[in-house]
Amino acid sequence: MAMEAGSILPEPMKLLATHDHSSVVSMNLFVALLCACIIIGHLLEENRWMNESITALAIGLCTGVVILLTSGGKSSHLLVFSEDLFFIYLLPPIIFNAGFQVKKKQFFRNFITIMLFGAVGTLISFGIISIGAIHFFQKMNVGPLKIGDYLAIGAIFSATDSVCTLQVLNQDETPLLYSLVFGEGVVNDATSVVLFNAIQSFDLTHLNSGIALQFIGGFLYLFVASTLLGAFAGLLSAYIIKKLYFGRHSTDREVALMILMAYLSYMLAELFNLSAILTVFFCGIVMSHYTWHNVTESSRVTTKHAFATLSFVAEIFIFLYVGMDALDIEKWKIVSSSPGTPIGVSSVLLALVLVGRAAFVFPLSFLSNLTKNSPYEKVNLKQQVTIWWAGLMRGAVSMALAYNQFTRSGHTHLRKNAIMITSTITVVLFSTVVFGLMTKPIVRVFLPSSKYIPTVLSSEPSTPKSLTVPLLAQDDTEANHPSSHHNVPRPTSLRMLLSIPSHTVHHYWRKFDDGFMRPVFGGRGFVPFFPGSPTDH
Amino acid sequence: MAMEAGSILPEPMKLLATHDHSSVVSMNLFVALLCACIIIGHLLEENRWMNESITALAIGLCTGVVILLTSGGKSSHLLVFSEDLFFIYLLPPIIFNAGFQVKKKQFFRNFITIMLFGAVGTLISFGIISIGAIHFFQKMNVGPLKIGDYLAIGAIFSATDSVCTLQVLNQDETPLLYSLVFGEGVVNDATSVVLFNAIQSFDLTHLNSGIALQFIGGFLYLFVASTLLGAFAGLLSAYIIKKLYFGRHSTDREVALMILMAYLSYMLAELFNLSAILTVFFCGIVMSHYTWHNVTESSRVTTKHAFATLSFVAEIFIFLYVGMDALDIEKWKIVSSSPGTPIGVSSVLLALVLVGRAAFVFPLSFLSNLTKNSPYEKVNLKQQVTIWWAGLMRGAVSMALAYNQFTRSGHTHLRKNAIMITSTITVVLFSTVVFGLMTKPIVRVFLPSSKYIPTVLSSEPSTPKSLTVPLLAQDDTEANHPSSHHNVPRPTSLRMLLSIPSHTVHHYWRKFDDGFMRPVFGGRGFVPFFPGSPTDH
Repeated sequence: MAMEAGSILPEPMKLLATHDHSSVVSMNLFVALLCACIIIGHLLEENRWMNESITALAIGLCTGVVILLTSGGKSSHLLVFSEDLFFIYLLPPIIFNAGFQVKKKQFFRNFITIMLFGAVGTLISFGIISIGAIHFFQKMNVGPLKIGDYLAIGAIFSATDSVCTLQVLNQDETPLLYSLVFGEGVVNDATSVVLFNAIQSFDLTHLNSGIALQFIGGFLYLFVASTLLGAFAGLLSAYIIKKLYFGRHSTDREVALMILMAYLSYMLAELFNLSAILTVFFCGIVMSHYTWHNVTESSRVTTKHAFATLSFVAEIFIFLYVGMDALDIEKWKIVSSSPGTPIGVSSVLLALVLVGRAAFVFPLSFLSNLTKNSPYEKVNLKQQVTIWWAGLMRGAVSMALAYNQFTRSGHTHLRKNAIMITSTITVVLFSTVVFGLMTKPIVRVFLPSSKYIPTVLSSEPSTPKSLTVPLLAQDDTEANHPSSHHNVPRPTSLRMLLSIPSHTVHHYWRKFDDGFMRPVFGGRGFVPFFPGSPTDH
Repeated sequence: MAMEAGSILPEPMKLLATHDHSSVVSMNLFVALLCACIIIGHLLEENRWMNESITALAIGLCTGVVILLTSGGKSSHLLVFSEDLFFIYLLPPIIFNAGFQVKKKQFFRNFITIMLFGAVGTLISFGIISIGAIHFFQKMNVGPLKIGDYLAIGAIFSATDSVCTLQVLNQDETPLLYSLVFGEGVVNDATSVVLFNAIQSFDLTHLNSGIALQFIGGFLYLFVASTLLGAFAGLLSAYIIKKLYFGRHSTDREVALMILMAYLSYMLAELFNLSAILTVFFCGIVMSHYTWHNVTESSRVTTKHAFATLSFVAEIFIFLYVGMDALDIEKWKIVSSSPGTPIGVSSVLLALVLVGRAAFVFPLSFLSNLTKNSPYEKVNLKQQVTIWWAGLMRGAVSMALAYNQFTRSGHTHLRKNAIMITSTITVVLFSTVVFGLMTKPIVRVFLPSSKYIPTVLSSEPSTPKSLTVPLLAQDDTEANHPSSHHNVPRPTSLRMLLSIPSHTVHHYWRKFDDGFMRPVFGGRGFVPFFPGSPTDH
C-alpha cells in the first residue's frame, strides 16, 4: 500500500523542475559526506598527524573510487567544478571570516613584513616558477605551451594554502608567527588572483617598460581601491547599526545586516573590477573592530560562530571536492599514453614550489629583521623555516585558477591541458597530504619553546570561553594588560612606545581611533546602551 | 591613471565565467534592496500598520517601476522566478526555523485542533474554491480551463501565509491562539503542496471511489513517513552530538552539523518523494527538544539566532521578489486587451478565499470545543474571528504553485494562463497589503484582553534576554512553574491531570521522554558536562 500510494501520489520533486532525480541523489550524498567529514574530523582531533583538510581529501578520494566503480569507470564526481560556486559562494565566507577573526593588533604591527611576504614574496615565487617552467618543460614533451601558459603556471603555483598550518599554530602561544603566516596567506591569495587575471587580459607578445609600469600602477590602484571599499562597507554597517540603535528591536536584523553588507562589499568589488578578496577581508577587519561592538551580546556570539561555521563548511566543501575530482577519469585517460610526463611535470613543479618559496622567505626575513630593533620582534631561523614550510601547501585557489586556464567549462581534451590539470591535482594532493601530515611534527621540532599540549582550551579557539570574555576584543586590551601566559616575552608598554617608528604610527592611529573613529562608528568602550542587554557597563 | 589601469588590468570578473556583467549588477541591486528592507523595517517597527512583509512588497514594487522605466518598458525584474531557488534554498530555512522556535508544549497540547484546521480545513477550503471557480469562471470568458486547472486553482488559493499575523500575535500573551495559527500555517503549507502535487500527477478523467481511497491512503502515508524521517534525522543529530561529546573540541562543528543534518533531512525527503516541508518542520522540533540541549552555550545562542536570521532573510527575499514580479509587463500586456476579466477573476477568487476559510474555521472550532472540558481551552467567537482573519493572506507558496501550473520556465504566452498568473499576483498583493494592514487593528479590537503594548521585551521574541534564560526550554518548565504573567488563567496541574485524555497521553509521553528518550538522546537536564562551559549545574 505504502509503496503503491507513494508511486501514485505526489512528487514534491515535480516542483524541482530543473533538478532531476540524479542531482537530488548527488546533493544528498554530498551533504552526507560533509557530515561524515565533520564527525571524522572531530574524532581525529587529537591525532598527531591528521587534520580536517586531509580527512576531507581522503573521504573525497574514497568516494571518487566508489563512484568510479559503480558507474563502470565513467565518471568520478558528483558535481561539475564550477568557478562561480567557488568564487561567489565558497571563497567569500572563508576570506571574510579570516578578516573577522584576525587579531588586528598583531596584524597591523607586522603589516610591513606581511606585505613584503605576501606581495613581493609572491612575485618572486611567481618569477622563479615561471622561469623554471619555461626552462624545464620545453625539454619534457609537454606540448606547445605559450608564454601566457607559462606565466599562468607561475601564478597558479604561487597561490599558497596555509589552512593546515593555521590549524597547528596557536594564536596565543606564537602570536608573531601566526600573524605572519596568516597575513601572508591572505595577501598572497589576493596577489596571485590579481596576477593571474592580469596575465590573462594582457597582450604578452609586446612587453616593454611602459606596460610594466602600467601593470604596477594598476596593481597598486587595485590594492588601495579594494581596501578602501572594504573599509567603507564595514564603517557604513557600523554607523547604521550604531545610529539606528538596532539592538532595541531585533537581534536577527543586526546579524542579517552584517552578513548582507559583507556580501554586498564583495559583490560591489566584483562590479567595479576590484579584488573582491581584499575588499571582503578588510570589511571583516573593520566590522570586527567597530560593528561587532555595536550589536547586542547575542549578536556577537552569533556572528562570531556563524561566520566561523560558514568558513569551516566552505573549506571542507572545497577539499572534499578536490579529493573527488582527483580521480576524474577523463583527464587521466588522455595523459595515460605517456605516464612519465605528468609525473615528471609534477616533480618539477613541486621542486620549483620548494625553491620559489625558499627564495623569498629567507632573504625577506633578513630584510625585515634589519628594520626591527627589539630582538623579540625579529624572526629567527627556526621561525623562518616554519614560515617557509607553512606556505608549501597548494590548495583550492590553485585548483580554481588551473581549471580556469586549462579547461573549457570543466572539460579538457587537449593533451597538454590534461597534463597541466592532472599535474596540478597531483601537486595539490601531494603537498596537502605529505607536507600537511608533516606540519605538526615539524612545528613541534622547530618551536619546542611553545608548550605544545593539545588541551581543550589551547587547541580550540572557539570553546565557550567566548561568553565570559569578548574574545575578539581581547587583543585590544593586550597593550594595557600584557597577558602573562605568552611564552615569548613581550616588551613593556613604555619600551614599545619609545622603540620604533611603526609603533608611533600605531600610537597616532590609536589617538585618532579613540578621538574620532570610535565616537562616530562605535567600538569597544563606545557601545550604546541597550535596555535588557547584559553588556558589561 | 586609475581608470586606465582599471581597464587594462584584471577582471576578477573573468573568473565568473557564466556570470556576465548584468547579473553581477542584479545581484548587487538585490542585496542592496535586502539591506534597505531590513533598515526600513527596523525604522517602521513601532508603526501601527506596517510590517516587514508589506515593506518588502512596497520596495519591490517601487524597484519594479524604476526598472520598468529605465529599461524602456521591457522588463521589471532582476531575477527570473525559479522554483528551485524557492523550494531548495528559501523555504527550508523558513520551515525549519518555524519548527525550531515553536513552543512545543502548546503545539502538542493543541495537536488535534491544529490537524483539524490544517488538514481537514485546507481540504474544505480547497473544495469550495475549486467548485466556486468551476461555477463562476465558465461564465467569465477566461478561456478553456481543464478540470485539472480548476483543482490546481483550489490548491493554490488554499495555501495561506500567516507571517503577517504571527508578527502581530504574541506567543506569551495569547499562547493558545498563537499555537493554533502557527500550527495551522505549517500543516496547511504541507497539505496544499501535497494536494497540488497529487492533482498534477493524477489522471483526473476517471474518478472513482478506489482512486479516492488510494489518494487518502497516500496522503496518510506521506504524512506519517515524512514526520518519522524528520524525527529520525533530529534524533540522529542529538545522539551523535551527545555520544561523541562534540562540545569538547569545537562549537563550529556542532553548529555546522546541526545545519547540515537539517538540510539533509529536507533533501532526503525530496529523494524519497515525501513532503520535505513536514520533514524539516519535525526535524526542527526534535532538534530544539534534544539536540539543542546537548551543545555548548555558545552554540545554543548561535543556532537560535542564526536559524531565525536565515528564515528572516528568506522571507524578505520572497516578498521583495513578489513585489518586483508584480509589474512583469509581459503578462499584463497579454491580458490588457480585456482588463475586465482579470479584475473579475481576482474579485471572485478573493471572495472564495474569504468564504472558503469561514466555511471551516467556525464549524471546526465548534467541533474542537466539544472535545474540551475546560472553558479556558475552548476557542471563543472573538478568537475564531481572529483565526479566520489570520489565514486570509496568500503569499509565496501560492505564487510558486501558480508559476508551476501556469507558466513554462517563468514565461507565459497563453491568454488564460496570463490571466491566472496576474490574478494570483493581484490576490497575493491585495490580501497581503490590505488584509495585512488591517491585522494589527483587528487583533487589537478582538483581543482587547491582551495588554497590547509594543514594549521592547514583549513585541520582540529575539531580544537578548535569551542569554539569561534558555528561551527555547522555558515552555518545558511551565508545567512545574505555571508562570503568573499569562492573562488567560491556567488550570492547576492537578486538574489538568484529571480532566482530559489528551493530557494523559501527554503525561505518558513525559514519562517515556524522561525515562528513555532523554537519557539516550540528551535534552534538558541530561546534558553532558563540558569543562569550561558555563552551563548551569
